[in-house]
Amino acid sequence: MRILGVDPGSHATGFGSIERVAGRLVHRLHGVLRPPTSASLADRLRYLHAELLVITRAERPDAVVVERVFLAANPRSALVLGQARGAILASLGEAGVPVVELSARQVKKSVTGNGGAAKDQVQTMVARLLGLAELPPADAADALALALTHAQAGPLASLALPSRRRSSRQAMTRLVLERRP
Amino acid sequence: MRILGVDPGSHATGFGSIERVAGRLVHRLHGVLRPPTSASLADRLRYLHAELLVITRAERPDAVVVERVFLAANPRSALVLGQARGAILASLGEAGVPVVELSARQVKKSVTGNGGAAKDQVQTMVARLLGLAELPPADAADALALALTHAQAGPLASLALPSRRRSSRQAMTRLVLERRP
Repeated sequence: MRILGVDPGSHATGFGSIERVAGRLVHRLHGVLRPPTSASLADRLRYLHAELLVITRAERPDAVVVERVFLAANPRSALVLGQARGAILASLGEAGVPVVELSARQVKKSVTGNGGAAKDQVQTMVARLLGLAELPPADAADALALALTHAQAGPLASLALPSRRRSSRQAMTRLVLERRP
Repeated sequence: MRILGVDPGSHATGFGSIERVAGRLVHRLHGVLRPPTSASLADRLRYLHAELLVITRAERPDAVVVERVFLAANPRSALVLGQARGAILASLGEAGVPVVELSARQVKKSVTGNGGAAKDQVQTMVARLLGLAELPPADAADALALALTHAQAGPLASLALPSRRRSSRQAMTRLVLERRP
């Protein structure tokens, strides 16, 4: 079972993919899409749509998990976030993969034990759970946390890896991408 | 010069295309995209993206005019509208056409003379200006009004057609589409 998490944003969209291998959750890749700020709105959204399509078609996940939006701060930021989500969801629809929505609270609770956890706590726990040698960027960590939460009902703490597995996990982190235009 | 107007909406997205022929603005086509309500959000957005891409590639407009959003009613409706706009703008970016944004007020003022005009006034004036035999649906009329406003600086009333041109304009309305899945 392979799961792709996506954390949509107009400036930075995090993504991260994990896979269940022999009962364990293994990191495959993660990264952050940053549409060129000099481009037009339509071109920045085209970029998000196109890149997500490439990633989703390459990864062929069994499900894609996207953060559910409950209440955006204000109409302006909701519109901007909505536009990024719209380009991304249209891309996932094009790829034909099932889309799951999870709330940030649910994900933080599952990964850190605390529904109100700070960004860096999520980064730390994601790195520990997946045996990553370095902390992933915050947006990518959120995406990996979405994927982890969907993959695993209940607390994830029990998945933390024994240190002897560390080296093989480090090898997998070579797949880490920082996709830039 | 050919101009495509698009009025994005999650339930109904209007579109309409006009062309300047020998100094006159001529109707080419209009229609309303209604994503299947039974489909998932991702699939509805995929539908908007894909249909707009087909229309834009077929029409090959010199510019696409989209309604500018100043202040959505509330965060929830802004998010929903933003998602539709995001799918549509990503599609326009993919088609590689210049995108122009105009405010609803500007368009109503240009087409009817009144920035606070009601929907049916826009429908009536668009039909009159383009010599259409029937009123276009409200969403398509808004899209045609966007295209007309961009095509013509200043009031459009002077473009209303003499009746002798009516028959050839009626022929063009055969291109009217009501695209449904």
